Amino acid sequence: MRIALDAMGGDRGPDELVSGALLAIRDADVEVVLVGDETMLRSVLSAKGVSEGSRLSVTHASQVVEMHDNAVDAIRKKRDSSILVACNLVARGEAAAVVSAGHSGATLAAAVRKMGRLEGVSRPGLASFFPTIKKPVVLMDIGGNVDCRPRHLLQFAIMAAAFASIHECENPRIGLLSIGEEAGKGNALIKDAYPLLAASSLNFIGNVEGRDIFQGDVDVVVCDGFVGNICLKVSEGLAAAAMRMLGDEIRKSFWAKLGYLLAKPAFRAFKKRVDYVEYGGAPILGIDGVALVCHGKSDAETIQNAILVANKMVVGGVNEQIRREISGVPLADTDDE
Amino acid sequence: MRIALDAMGGDRGPDELVSGALLAIRDADVEVVLVGDETMLRSVLSAKGVSEGSRLSVTHASQVVEMHDNAVDAIRKKRDSSILVACNLVARGEAAAVVSAGHSGATLAAAVRKMGRLEGVSRPGLASFFPTIKKPVVLMDIGGNVDCRPRHLLQFAIMAAAFASIHECENPRIGLLSIGEEAGKGNALIKDAYPLLAASSLNFIGNVEGRDIFQGDVDVVVCDGFVGNICLKVSEGLAAAAMRMLGDEIRKSFWAKLGYLLAKPAFRAFKKRVDYVEYGGAPILGIDGVALVCHGKSDAETIQNAILVANKMVVGGVNEQIRREISGVPLADTDDE
Repeated sequence: MRIALDAMGGDRGPDELVSGALLAIRDADVEVVLVGDETMLRSVLSAKGVSEGSRLSVTHASQVVEMHDNAVDAIRKKRDSSILVACNLVARGEAAAVVSAGHSGATLAAAVRKMGRLEGVSRPGLASFFPTIKKPVVLMDIGGNVDCRPRHLLQFAIMAAAFASIHECENPRIGLLSIGEEAGKGNALIKDAYPLLAASSLNFIGNVEGRDIFQGDVDVVVCDGFVGNICLKVSEGLAAAAMRMLGDEIRKSFWAKLGYLLAKPAFRAFKKRVDYVEYGGAPILGIDGVALVCHGKSDAETIQNAILVANKMVVGGVNEQIRREISGVPLADTDDE
Repeated sequence: MRIALDAMGGDRGPDELVSGALLAIRDADVEVVLVGDETMLRSVLSAKGVSEGSRLSVTHASQVVEMHDNAVDAIRKKRDSSILVACNLVARGEAAAVVSAGHSGATLAAAVRKMGRLEGVSRPGLASFFPTIKKPVVLMDIGGNVDCRPRHLLQFAIMAAAFASIHECENPRIGLLSIGEEAGKGNALIKDAYPLLAASSLNFIGNVEGRDIFQGDVDVVVCDGFVGNICLKVSEGLAAAAMRMLGDEIRKSFWAKLGYLLAKPAFRAFKKRVDYVEYGGAPILGIDGVALVCHGKSDAETIQNAILVANKMVVGGVNEQIRREISGVPLADTDDE
């Protein structure tokens, strides 16, 4: 099992990414191909006292998609960029999966272009874990598939359910994100998607509300990519603002500062639990390959987790399950892109 | 200035609501009419050693809309319910505003039915404050106006801007909630609403993302009621789940528990700052009257704040401003309900 790591993407630089790769090959039966500037990557490896071998190799890519690049332009023009070269390895069968902490739009575009869609899938999308008071829930789509039709939501449900199944979640409970639990609640899209999900073989539990996402009583929450992206950003924004406001209040008093120091390990444990990036990246689902998008700020442990999740997705046959399930729900002509 | 308080709504019961009314008349030049079961309310007043007078009176209502009631059915059938009687006082000019911590759907339905829409307003909606690291931001619509047309969003912007102006916010900055800051980002609704807002006389600053809501660099965020309700519920759900998860971690260690005790005043100050219900209820905007919906769990201080906000809305001429501004943006025939 070879996994290609875009070793140039991410805010922390190649050193951190290579550390993640080393953790992954230490803990699991995987090979990692580091894709990027070979001179730089070899010097990173030698600084760590590691040499290339059968489980860790370097593939050269002379360009990098920068964060300020336009995603579509970048993958058209930077043909030797690390993310495109990595996706090409999968397209040519030389790697089973790609992990990138670089430009997420470019990663999505490159993966879809190079690997292609799985047969029957209308719109590949991005899923993400959200923390809950029980086990994490999968939300899909967060990848910006706007103006969806009802059948797209059914396909997201099928794809996210296949992904959830690799996390010891048999027959995952699927909820449709809406503004009320009853079947008639929601906008036109949700009202029309509800009967499609109810008639499917999925374990559909009905509509769920925004607050239910964090309760852990549903395994997969389905929404269009506009709503999903806003949910993700609202959660990130609230968490960051709340931490800053709490910090402001704590800094106002000596006793509060002392108290915070005493409670710091609990805060750290809490942060680890909440920080969804720890869960190992967001999978691009619906493509003929495996690709995981990690947050730019990902550290070595997150990259390790993403590589292990990619490995699980290949071993667990997520794409085979998607292909099998989705063949039962052909898109109407009007649903096609 | 008389304000009608639905004294039967809310999880904490009439005693807490009456306490809120007493705080309000202590601090501001308002009269409050308590609407509900007169026997019960008079016994609450006498237990508090307060007697009715020109600034505090009781108006009888024999019924209550319960939380499990269907909103539309309830206001059709429970004609002598406290919320309908309170809204009737405004419709008849015997009160200037209504405050209710009862069934929010029923309050919305009762207020729209009894007070009617302001001329030119297509869809009344519900606005809400969100906490930010600077001053609170107003989000509209959170009231479930689903499947909006672009011009509805323009009207929400006008109404929410008028409301924001009573909070020492001159020429509020208006943002359109989307999944990218550039003008072309978003779903079809947002793409079409953008030029309408840009061409208006509002201080439109463009698209804002979910995480920007909490940064305090925008005063009013506009979205349809499906997205707005989900944002509100996601925020509530995340805040509650995070507090619970943090509590779990703190309880695991003696030192963390001690630290939490030392930092408790900071936590309390933080909670007060984050808890948007403290800001005094969500206004129903676009109706020919003033009505504020409070969270069921509202305490006396929240009720007091809501009464003071209602007073400010009347004195500040929010509805006059809405009427004036909205007359400049006639709805096309296809935009009408």
